[in-house]
Amino acid sequence: MNDRPHTPLLDRVRYPADIRALDKDDLPQLADELRQEMISAVSVTGGHLGAGLGVVELTVAAHYVFDTPDDKLIWDVGHQAYPHKIVTGRRDRIRTLRQGGGLSGFTKRSESEYDPFGAAHSSTSISAALGFAIANKLSNKPGRAIAVIGDGAMSAGMAYEAMNNAEAAGNRLIVILNDNDMSIAPPVGSLRNSLARLVSSQKYLTPRALAAKLASKMPETVQRFAERTEEYVRGWVTGGTLFEELGFYYVGPVDGHDVNALVEVLENVRDANIGPMLVHVVTQKGKGYGPAESSADKYHGVVKFDVVSGKQDKGAGGGPPSYQNVFGETLAKLADRDDKIVAITAAMPSGTGVDKFAAAHPDRAFDVGIAEQHGVTFAAGLAAQGMRPFVAIYSTFLQRAYDQVVHDVAIQNLPVRFAMDRAGLVGADGATHAGSFDLAYLCTLPNFIVMAPSDEAELAHMVKTMQQHDSGPIAVRYPRGEGRGVPLPADPEPLVIGKGRIIREGKTVAILSLGTRLAEAEKAADELEAKGLSTTIADLRFAKPLDVALIRRLMTTHDVVVTIEEASIGGLGAHVLTLASDEGLLDGGLKIRTLRLPDRFQDHDKPDKQYEEAGLNAPHIVDTVLKALRSNSVGVEEALA
Amino acid sequence: MNDRPHTPLLDRVRYPADIRALDKDDLPQLADELRQEMISAVSVTGGHLGAGLGVVELTVAAHYVFDTPDDKLIWDVGHQAYPHKIVTGRRDRIRTLRQGGGLSGFTKRSESEYDPFGAAHSSTSISAALGFAIANKLSNKPGRAIAVIGDGAMSAGMAYEAMNNAEAAGNRLIVILNDNDMSIAPPVGSLRNSLARLVSSQKYLTPRALAAKLASKMPETVQRFAERTEEYVRGWVTGGTLFEELGFYYVGPVDGHDVNALVEVLENVRDANIGPMLVHVVTQKGKGYGPAESSADKYHGVVKFDVVSGKQDKGAGGGPPSYQNVFGETLAKLADRDDKIVAITAAMPSGTGVDKFAAAHPDRAFDVGIAEQHGVTFAAGLAAQGMRPFVAIYSTFLQRAYDQVVHDVAIQNLPVRFAMDRAGLVGADGATHAGSFDLAYLCTLPNFIVMAPSDEAELAHMVKTMQQHDSGPIAVRYPRGEGRGVPLPADPEPLVIGKGRIIREGKTVAILSLGTRLAEAEKAADELEAKGLSTTIADLRFAKPLDVALIRRLMTTHDVVVTIEEASIGGLGAHVLTLASDEGLLDGGLKIRTLRLPDRFQDHDKPDKQYEEAGLNAPHIVDTVLKALRSNSVGVEEALA
Repeated sequence: MNDRPHTPLLDRVRYPADIRALDKDDLPQLADELRQEMISAVSVTGGHLGAGLGVVELTVAAHYVFDTPDDKLIWDVGHQAYPHKIVTGRRDRIRTLRQGGGLSGFTKRSESEYDPFGAAHSSTSISAALGFAIANKLSNKPGRAIAVIGDGAMSAGMAYEAMNNAEAAGNRLIVILNDNDMSIAPPVGSLRNSLARLVSSQKYLTPRALAAKLASKMPETVQRFAERTEEYVRGWVTGGTLFEELGFYYVGPVDGHDVNALVEVLENVRDANIGPMLVHVVTQKGKGYGPAESSADKYHGVVKFDVVSGKQDKGAGGGPPSYQNVFGETLAKLADRDDKIVAITAAMPSGTGVDKFAAAHPDRAFDVGIAEQHGVTFAAGLAAQGMRPFVAIYSTFLQRAYDQVVHDVAIQNLPVRFAMDRAGLVGADGATHAGSFDLAYLCTLPNFIVMAPSDEAELAHMVKTMQQHDSGPIAVRYPRGEGRGVPLPADPEPLVIGKGRIIREGKTVAILSLGTRLAEAEKAADELEAKGLSTTIADLRFAKPLDVALIRRLMTTHDVVVTIEEASIGGLGAHVLTLASDEGLLDGGLKIRTLRLPDRFQDHDKPDKQYEEAGLNAPHIVDTVLKALRSNSVGVEEALA
Repeated sequence: MNDRPHTPLLDRVRYPADIRALDKDDLPQLADELRQEMISAVSVTGGHLGAGLGVVELTVAAHYVFDTPDDKLIWDVGHQAYPHKIVTGRRDRIRTLRQGGGLSGFTKRSESEYDPFGAAHSSTSISAALGFAIANKLSNKPGRAIAVIGDGAMSAGMAYEAMNNAEAAGNRLIVILNDNDMSIAPPVGSLRNSLARLVSSQKYLTPRALAAKLASKMPETVQRFAERTEEYVRGWVTGGTLFEELGFYYVGPVDGHDVNALVEVLENVRDANIGPMLVHVVTQKGKGYGPAESSADKYHGVVKFDVVSGKQDKGAGGGPPSYQNVFGETLAKLADRDDKIVAITAAMPSGTGVDKFAAAHPDRAFDVGIAEQHGVTFAAGLAAQGMRPFVAIYSTFLQRAYDQVVHDVAIQNLPVRFAMDRAGLVGADGATHAGSFDLAYLCTLPNFIVMAPSDEAELAHMVKTMQQHDSGPIAVRYPRGEGRGVPLPADPEPLVIGKGRIIREGKTVAILSLGTRLAEAEKAADELEAKGLSTTIADLRFAKPLDVALIRRLMTTHDVVVTIEEASIGGLGAHVLTLASDEGLLDGGLKIRTLRLPDRFQDHDKPDKQYEEAGLNAPHIVDTVLKALRSNSVGVEEALA
């Protein structure tokens, strides 16, 4: 049991206006108390810890200096916003973080006017801030937009696109680069080296030096003349030329844990009138909490933990392996005997299991950073030159590379393998991380093969299937979390493309299942059998191509057919229905129903509860079958004869 | 009638090896002949002219210096590759460019081993080149990868992502920046200013200066020590620091029309062994053809023309307005009385009709460059701050912002308006530009409203509908090209969301049409009526939400229902079928068929022929209806009673 911290100053702060009413000298203590409160809250809820600890001082300073919520403070990704939530009217609910019905683990517009733009995917903040800034400019409203973005998030193309367009916002836009030398894993790429040079090349910028620098800005005409010279002199001194080439006035680096220095720098920046500014703030992920500081991942994401020891409540262990690890380990083993296998991850080596592959085959593992677009086309290039690339990206994040999937992979029919973790509902991360749309957006593409395993052994077979499939793109989607506990094959075998399997054979009801709802289908079948309804279950394995022969046979020999999938409308059910109508299988009447995710974004909760809410558990299957059996020819329910 | 040019040197060149067999002194003449041949070819085919004219010398020099096809020469976008096609074995077919069955207007793997990676969307070349380079490195194969990318394409995030990851390729990767100060429209953003400074700040790099510079590269250990100093000295001299911050060795600028200088610079670059290099080549779009040089768009895309006068064969004119212009003009008019309307285009002001809006409301038109991701999230920020943003992006290019559509717009339910031109099949641009998947990838998203007009007057009403819809995202998709010639409304009226309209009322057959196939549906209905089959036509207007009442009524009162759309599987037909099964409307038997694009990528051809090939013209509708009427209860055709 963790005690609540003593927080006399924080207790006086409900909203940012209360921070602004404090004496500047009190801000360090406020930051300390805020840090303790955050540690205490996350110790009972679990969640993202390290990122929030790193920005406690920045949170205090930003709200002290800027006039939130009229000034728009936009936290990139949003998982570092727990301290922000505490000081923006949500402290009373902070111990409900990521729990069903509680606060979101990210920023969310519906939660607070202090969250002007929701985020959970990375690198959107500068674009959004530009939108606010330009809207204010066009409407002659006051108000700045401040984007706080991590160095890892800066590796994404959309951050660059936004910076390249920032000039139009003038001094209404401020970008705070939160440089903690970590995204989730240590960041990669040349940008990283560039930032490291900035930080190592000089001492922290003092507010006095900054004030002098800003004051020295010359009048417009002289300024133009001197522009080039001055810029490279600044480049020489600060090295911040990448941002200056993109039209920003670079300020930094600044010590992100000196709250008063931050306040003074931000006040200077706020009052400067020289166009969009980039403030380079150096922070330490996990700052101020020993166990986090000394951990390799800086407690990026944690479960409940003991505050004193830092020990996380990870349960007994020894459960079934996670899908991500089955993927990574299977691929690593296959690569022992296939030197054409290459694995690509976009800043998620451990979340995708690519770390297991990288440990065994470091030369063939590529972490491209938060750069899904590049990752996919890079893989297409590798495939075009004869390699067997596996791109491991969460379902929700592959959305960011959709055009590359279409244009570089599908149209060219290149054998890129996609391993899409976190398919379906994902629990505490909520709607922004759900992998709901992949079946719709992939199955519509010619040339694509799309699979989903019903358990972890099936996943191993599917990884093998992907290895062997050299004639075009192939994808597998699978859920977050543990498998069912089935034995893993010592030697996975390739599946026949487009062939499903019968799990049990019946006569009246046929359940066509794709993915891990198979367990629920089996429970439902037991119940239906108990009611005297003989039930077939097929594990389709392939959403594309469908097993036409199997589906035709089941449709012509059963009274009710139900499809079930962990995906939104437009996926398996829609494709099965399209096949059935193409083939005329509906012409004589078929009671067919498709169970799928509902047509709304579901809030975070435990996955079981989310699927209950979605109507995709065994009782829903049973209910759907019984209602269908009772319906007459135009879908109106009749009493069961 | 244009005469064929006299090309004695070019006549000796069939493949790049033939160029390499020439004397260096002959290269300027070869370039001249190649330019004349290209002008002659495009004068009869139409196509992209200006871009190819700008890279004639670069084409000759690159093939002279590099060992293609073992060295991989990758043309970004690919529409500048006509000269490349002429010297890589395709001269005999160059006058079939963009014609049905002829050469593609882009690079295409299936055409030639000299096209290692197909392209048509922008900014993919560096990622792909990295894939080739790394594959060769892992396989211990020789061979470099050379990406040729325009300055406009550099504004896309994925180019930045690729550059940030380039270091791993070492000296196997060479990026040639083709800086012509034009993409399709003049490029925008700070990158543009940065490049302009590079070019204006110094004379062209001479081969001798480059050789000295490269020779002076120090041994590794000294190099590290001196790295920072040297880099900023180079920055001072060349200004190329943006690329150097991203890990490239910058070389330039080089005169892109001096073929011998190009050859020497590229030879130096080829033989340097100091990591990835970026060669900044300055070219002139439309170079060497007077009418193109003096035209504002440098003859980016042309129809057939007279070589001497440059006069394009634009036909009589006076036809119906294009959809893009109806969109742009309608929006401009609405904005006269609504100062919250803002329009955003991604480097396509004239292609989308946003130029019409910009002419009337310059402060509220934003061209973000080739930066669809940023454009969409920027619009989301504008919407969150109370503006009414219209994002005008071709259907195929919106794929590049799919995650932003999902994460920033749909999840937050922000009223961003999407105007998606070039939906369906697009003719000469082929599969890469077809807008086939938008219904599938948008209709699966909660909160989205998706419309398609059946003619240009309907589009005007839909633009008005979008203006008035402030409660969430709304999209309209419409084809490339001219409308049907119907009168445009003086005062467009908002449609009722989710309501279709009956075009004609019948009894036996119901055709549910979405979009401009309505004209074919009307022809089909006439034929069906002539055969005694009373036919209803509904113009659904909305793919989402569907008009449930209308669809239920038609399904319960007709014998055959056919849907038709200009989109791939997973779109309208799939959603109508899903609704029908949800409602039990299939339970008693319904002969329902969905006509849609085929599940393969269709090559370029005239749009009419493409739709004929797709099976979406009137005779296909009639045939589908007749076959359905003849089928028995399990879809087997019976003789019509």
